[in-house]
Amino acid sequence: MDRAIFEAMINTRRQLHRRPEEGWTEFETTYYIVSRLKTLGYEKILAGASCINKEAVLGRSAELVAREKERAVQAGVPRAFIDACEDYTGALAVLETGRPGPVTALRFDIDCVLVEETDDPEHAPNKGGFASERKGLMHACGHDGHTAVGLAVARWIIEHKDELSGTIKLIFQPAEEGVRGAAAIAASGLLDDVDYIFGSHCGGKAKPGEVALVRGGVLASTKLDIRFTGKASHAGNEPHKGRSALMAACAASLMLAGIPRHGGGASRIAVGKMIAGEGRNVTPVHALIQIEVRGETAEVNDYMVENVKHIVKGAAEAYQTQYEIEKTGEATTIIDHPEMQKLVREAAQALPEVKNIVELSNPSGSEDFTALLKRVTDKGGQGALFRWGCRHNGHHKSDFDLQDEQSMPIGFGVFCNLVKKINSAAC
Amino acid sequence: MDRAIFEAMINTRRQLHRRPEEGWTEFETTYYIVSRLKTLGYEKILAGASCINKEAVLGRSAELVAREKERAVQAGVPRAFIDACEDYTGALAVLETGRPGPVTALRFDIDCVLVEETDDPEHAPNKGGFASERKGLMHACGHDGHTAVGLAVARWIIEHKDELSGTIKLIFQPAEEGVRGAAAIAASGLLDDVDYIFGSHCGGKAKPGEVALVRGGVLASTKLDIRFTGKASHAGNEPHKGRSALMAACAASLMLAGIPRHGGGASRIAVGKMIAGEGRNVTPVHALIQIEVRGETAEVNDYMVENVKHIVKGAAEAYQTQYEIEKTGEATTIIDHPEMQKLVREAAQALPEVKNIVELSNPSGSEDFTALLKRVTDKGGQGALFRWGCRHNGHHKSDFDLQDEQSMPIGFGVFCNLVKKINSAAC
Amino acid sequence: MDRAIFEAMINTRRQLHRRPEEGWTEFETTYYIVSRLKTLGYEKILAGASCINKEAVLGRSAELVAREKERAVQAGVPRAFIDACEDYTGALAVLETGRPGPVTALRFDIDCVLVEETDDPEHAPNKGGFASERKGLMHACGHDGHTAVGLAVARWIIEHKDELSGTIKLIFQPAEEGVRGAAAIAASGLLDDVDYIFGSHCGGKAKPGEVALVRGGVLASTKLDIRFTGKASHAGNEPHKGRSALMAACAASLMLAGIPRHGGGASRIAVGKMIAGEGRNVTPVHALIQIEVRGETAEVNDYMVENVKHIVKGAAEAYQTQYEIEKTGEATTIIDHPEMQKLVREAAQALPEVKNIVELSNPSGSEDFTALLKRVTDKGGQGALFRWGCRHNGHHKSDFDLQDEQSMPIGFGVFCNLVKKINSAAC
Amino acid sequence: MDRAIFEAMINTRRQLHRRPEEGWTEFETTYYIVSRLKTLGYEKILAGASCINKEAVLGRSAELVAREKERAVQAGVPRAFIDACEDYTGALAVLETGRPGPVTALRFDIDCVLVEETDDPEHAPNKGGFASERKGLMHACGHDGHTAVGLAVARWIIEHKDELSGTIKLIFQPAEEGVRGAAAIAASGLLDDVDYIFGSHCGGKAKPGEVALVRGGVLASTKLDIRFTGKASHAGNEPHKGRSALMAACAASLMLAGIPRHGGGASRIAVGKMIAGEGRNVTPVHALIQIEVRGETAEVNDYMVENVKHIVKGAAEAYQTQYEIEKTGEATTIIDHPEMQKLVREAAQALPEVKNIVELSNPSGSEDFTALLKRVTDKGGQGALFRWGCRHNGHHKSDFDLQDEQSMPIGFGVFCNLVKKINSAAC
Repeated sequence: MDRAIFEAMINTRRQLHRRPEEGWTEFETTYYIVSRLKTLGYEKILAGASCINKEAVLGRSAELVAREKERAVQAGVPRAFIDACEDYTGALAVLETGRPGPVTALRFDIDCVLVEETDDPEHAPNKGGFASERKGLMHACGHDGHTAVGLAVARWIIEHKDELSGTIKLIFQPAEEGVRGAAAIAASGLLDDVDYIFGSHCGGKAKPGEVALVRGGVLASTKLDIRFTGKASHAGNEPHKGRSALMAACAASLMLAGIPRHGGGASRIAVGKMIAGEGRNVTPVHALIQIEVRGETAEVNDYMVENVKHIVKGAAEAYQTQYEIEKTGEATTIIDHPEMQKLVREAAQALPEVKNIVELSNPSGSEDFTALLKRVTDKGGQGALFRWGCRHNGHHKSDFDLQDEQSMPIGFGVFCNLVKKINSAAC
Repeated sequence: MDRAIFEAMINTRRQLHRRPEEGWTEFETTYYIVSRLKTLGYEKILAGASCINKEAVLGRSAELVAREKERAVQAGVPRAFIDACEDYTGALAVLETGRPGPVTALRFDIDCVLVEETDDPEHAPNKGGFASERKGLMHACGHDGHTAVGLAVARWIIEHKDELSGTIKLIFQPAEEGVRGAAAIAASGLLDDVDYIFGSHCGGKAKPGEVALVRGGVLASTKLDIRFTGKASHAGNEPHKGRSALMAACAASLMLAGIPRHGGGASRIAVGKMIAGEGRNVTPVHALIQIEVRGETAEVNDYMVENVKHIVKGAAEAYQTQYEIEKTGEATTIIDHPEMQKLVREAAQALPEVKNIVELSNPSGSEDFTALLKRVTDKGGQGALFRWGCRHNGHHKSDFDLQDEQSMPIGFGVFCNLVKKINSAAC
Repeated sequence: MDRAIFEAMINTRRQLHRRPEEGWTEFETTYYIVSRLKTLGYEKILAGASCINKEAVLGRSAELVAREKERAVQAGVPRAFIDACEDYTGALAVLETGRPGPVTALRFDIDCVLVEETDDPEHAPNKGGFASERKGLMHACGHDGHTAVGLAVARWIIEHKDELSGTIKLIFQPAEEGVRGAAAIAASGLLDDVDYIFGSHCGGKAKPGEVALVRGGVLASTKLDIRFTGKASHAGNEPHKGRSALMAACAASLMLAGIPRHGGGASRIAVGKMIAGEGRNVTPVHALIQIEVRGETAEVNDYMVENVKHIVKGAAEAYQTQYEIEKTGEATTIIDHPEMQKLVREAAQALPEVKNIVELSNPSGSEDFTALLKRVTDKGGQGALFRWGCRHNGHHKSDFDLQDEQSMPIGFGVFCNLVKKINSAAC
Repeated sequence: MDRAIFEAMINTRRQLHRRPEEGWTEFETTYYIVSRLKTLGYEKILAGASCINKEAVLGRSAELVAREKERAVQAGVPRAFIDACEDYTGALAVLETGRPGPVTALRFDIDCVLVEETDDPEHAPNKGGFASERKGLMHACGHDGHTAVGLAVARWIIEHKDELSGTIKLIFQPAEEGVRGAAAIAASGLLDDVDYIFGSHCGGKAKPGEVALVRGGVLASTKLDIRFTGKASHAGNEPHKGRSALMAACAASLMLAGIPRHGGGASRIAVGKMIAGEGRNVTPVHALIQIEVRGETAEVNDYMVENVKHIVKGAAEAYQTQYEIEKTGEATTIIDHPEMQKLVREAAQALPEVKNIVELSNPSGSEDFTALLKRVTDKGGQGALFRWGCRHNGHHKSDFDLQDEQSMPIGFGVFCNLVKKINSAAC
């Protein structure tokens, strides 16, 4: 790839790596993206509230956002910018070539994870002086690289816009972690005219020099926060007057783990956290459990969610507590459009750096690109998800790194080739 | 006591010991009682359905009754007698002296327990040749003695009726075990005119030669049968299609055991039995648990019952099963009428065989005489429960025995003395 | 197929259908098989204890066997025969052709299931007058047909023995239901010289006219009976002195259902039955739960068993009870020998009645032929399992029927063709 | 009482109210007490480590202490003082009169609770400008008053020392909340020569103008922190590799709630808090539950603790996690020395402010004065606990207040009268 674009991309990634922001608080990141897109010459840029449907937002804490907004302002983001975004994050740039042609959307996710970066001096960001400046937060899943690739693709597109036809939509999606952000973008309707949509993720099982076509195995998933509210009483004097939210949460947790396996495919249930009770000798009033379910098919995932609802309601009834179930994230399975897989394969094959192309379909994690692809598919479009390999020590670990920055050009290249193929003015 | 009455009483007790009948199936026993009362000269005898309110019957299995009716017929009870009783058991004899005076009721319970009598040759019923002829059933709680005492008292009363005033009601109550029978007698209204009611039990903590005034400590109790109904499925192929009644019952059992202690007094919860499931590899459709709760006060017992209801409903909801709660027994706490305690004390003191009189008030078992006393009290009457001591190896054990038949005259004597005091024509 | 053989086979199947016997109690069936084999001219017949390793027997109740032995004797089986079998069932006939050649084993299972046959007059066994004479027991899985096919194959072999070389071993396996019987046969060592082993099952997903090659999807499974033993106490007076086996079983059941899913393949856990407790107001001393686990791979199944052990031990510890875990059945996954699949395919293709040949590999039930195949494979042999289709309303249902007796010749034909191919004297 | 002493006492209480400190962090309070005692003329003052047995300390977090020490230093407590205390709190002053006579000990507790004081302007501390300056901490149980009474008594004693004989020991006990502090003082041996020990508490059920003799009903109690440690795994990809500490804690909690009631007296079990898990999609590695048990007798309490141990061990076994049980507090029942009750009664009767004297014996809270009394009793001494009534809105509530500072003189008066009676030089 073009040396200047490559170097800018690497710089961008490092700059973002320094300032990781968790889902729905990517103010510095969004401001950076929007500023860069403007500089590149994009005219139609939707940021924050304007690129999502606020009703459909999942897993966003107003309290956290308020706090983080102040932090971002202190870090130099103009308050007016965030205000204009209505305190939401993410951006969507639209390039209309003016020539008739298909609408193509590319998705890049921008948030970090709650991991503390290692202080190992051999860790490249430490060596290179671009480690996270924000304790407890880290781009340990590579979304800094995704965003940098996205901005590089944005630059390539604008530099080649005279050779292109149709419309290109570049989505910089917030809050992919916890599969929270895509739903609100899907629900915005802004992708309803999209003919083709593509997303990617670095690493995973894809090895350096490899492009992996994701044909299946992405588990549908729903993330839920469940709250029980009981009644306090002195546990020594009047235990009978209390209603223990903690006990309701414990009973629910045990029963949740026991949701029967589904004969139609793999399922998952995890009770990942519980915080319950106020004091040793007081009947606990508040209990929160954070759970997630998954399914090899949407049907299996729905089955799990349905069972969760019955169990939580039942536990609340048994312990005479109140309850709330809040959906904080949601993803579905990947839809396999064989023609799109073929396109990605060709786009990858055209790159000399690509040594191997594989297909993935075994059950693994979840990815909320699936929500965008589903919306596009429902409206008559198509799309695909691919992985570009890289060396790494495991995602979400404190020593995760895009160890070979040379891997990013593959992601860049596949996206550009796809645009070339689909939106060539020559076609 | 009169030698003839004593010997008849011992004979009666032994005869009844041979033919133990469990609650609501006391056909031979009821027929025996009614025959004897007639022979004695009682004219007003209500038997079976006529001395209870059928709507208020607890813990009676129509299936068991039907089977046992045939057994009783085979054992010689006229079918017409049982038909006239409408398949119910128990009897109530009324003696109207014709002289104005108070209405006094005496209660004697008649059923056996599900215990297999020991074959120890030293066990008195084996030695004396009057052991249970019905395998698995035994008068191991002394109700054979209670009934024998009752018939002896009935004889004494009729022999002394010219010295008595007012009305005497002799209640031969079915199904005391599981505290089932009293509710239906109370609800019959036949005791609503009673001024004084007395009941007794042999043994317990009362030692030989001792009469114990029961002033408290009788736990209120409710017995419940709980059934869950789920949905079958092959546990290997389609586990997700099943709804496990067994799991609902297990979760309910765990949560039941965990009902918070009551700050206002002792409580009890027991899950005594579970029968659940049809086959190893089929999701269980049926589950039955048999439970009981108790409370030092009626309020505590009600609290337990209320919690049971929420828990069972919640467990059914959680596992998406149906459920039923059937009350099979109920008793309340003893009401302490100090004046009546005084009367019993005096009646006992007048007996030379009585060496000691004690008061009981520590939490112990349950007794459904409490339901009769409550009804009488609610209608303006009074009453008391007492124990007459005897040597024994523990109630409900296979070697229980009224080891000293000499103890029965004490029970007999207290009852007669009470009647003498209250219904003396001389007063 | 030969008309005489066919008719004998149908008669056999009907005769067996009338006298269904559950696993390890197949005395009438075994006697019938042995008698027939003798009549056919088999000289080396091992029956009962002589064809199994008694140490390795699973899921056999000595009490049930003793009772059923008397029943069989009453039904006409010579007591001496059963005595010689040492009260065990099943048979193994060996035909040595005298010509060098491979050792081939064929497996036929002979037990029934605990299902009550429908009284629907349209149900063929009712129409044909050969319905089960034993209430609550029924050949509702088609093993009557398997045995009949086996005896027909035995006849064909002996009639063609001059055209055959090597050795043929015909296994009439007891107790396949609950996957109990194969382990003891495998452990006998009698199959350690086997080069090729084949088994079959009627029906399932195989349609009429179809032969299905079972290449995978047979779940490994372990069946366990778990007993907790606690301590009795009066639940009202001394609840603290009891140790509830019921509660231990409930807690174990809940925790068992919650064994985490395995990332490496489908797993199953079923708590199918619980019987616990002696009386409503007594702390339960005895609790039995009958469970099974399954796994898409042996590793997954082992993982489940390992977790069961920890959970049961933990529940017993928590409730201060004793426990026992008894393995009552075990099966593993199918080993796929492609060459054997090819042989079966060819054997099936040679039959004009076979319209279609399919392959099965989706997770479904369990089958203890897998234990025999594993033993043979471990010792250097190979083998395969196939299904011959038939019309049916579902296995283990009260109206199951081999509705088209014309399907049995396909099973017969595949076995004979396999023997022809492998043990042809001409080869 | 003496006006000067009264006014100093009120001032002291208000000053302490402003600077509440939780158990084992009472550095400002201890420094204040020690300074005052010195000023008063006490010569033998043991502070911090010198008045406890460090091995027997319960419920003290070194981490919290370290942080709070810095806070106290910043607030003006000399670092050298805390260092000399070895970072422990509490004080014991000894007055030897030089005249032979009994050794009398008086106990005053000094710590606060974790309650946030109300901002209601009508709340006296707000009105009077002495509300807590430490957010989230408050003297909401009246120990500020206890300490102020203690210092007033100390003053009275020194002012009257010439009229006294024997030895007086004044215990300013840390960490009464959570019944943590007394054990270490008891174990110090410093009270082994005590003949008489007295403690008091304000409020509770004692009304203004009332002194209550605590003759029973103080529940024995044990406070436990239970930690489970499991193994992390990605809950989506490898759920089978995780060992959930959260699930172990949930199962333990359910089973703990279900410890059978004790037939020998009231028991309590409370699971007051749970903190478990690290992230929604990670198998939880850490779980902490904070529990307490209580018993009407030490035997009942021991029974509860014994059951807790079995349950926690069992849950850890079932879920294959590690576990730890840490005792963080312990109290026993009150020992009733009738002669001491009589003494307190007389000491109270002698006060004109006392309108009424009552006796308490119903089960209620716990109090670790019991540990001191037990030690003294074991060594041949005697003692008693009393309550001096006051108006209040409920202990441990944000608007708790010693609403009538006039109540404190009653506490003061009873202690002084006891000393007068026991240690009078005239005797």
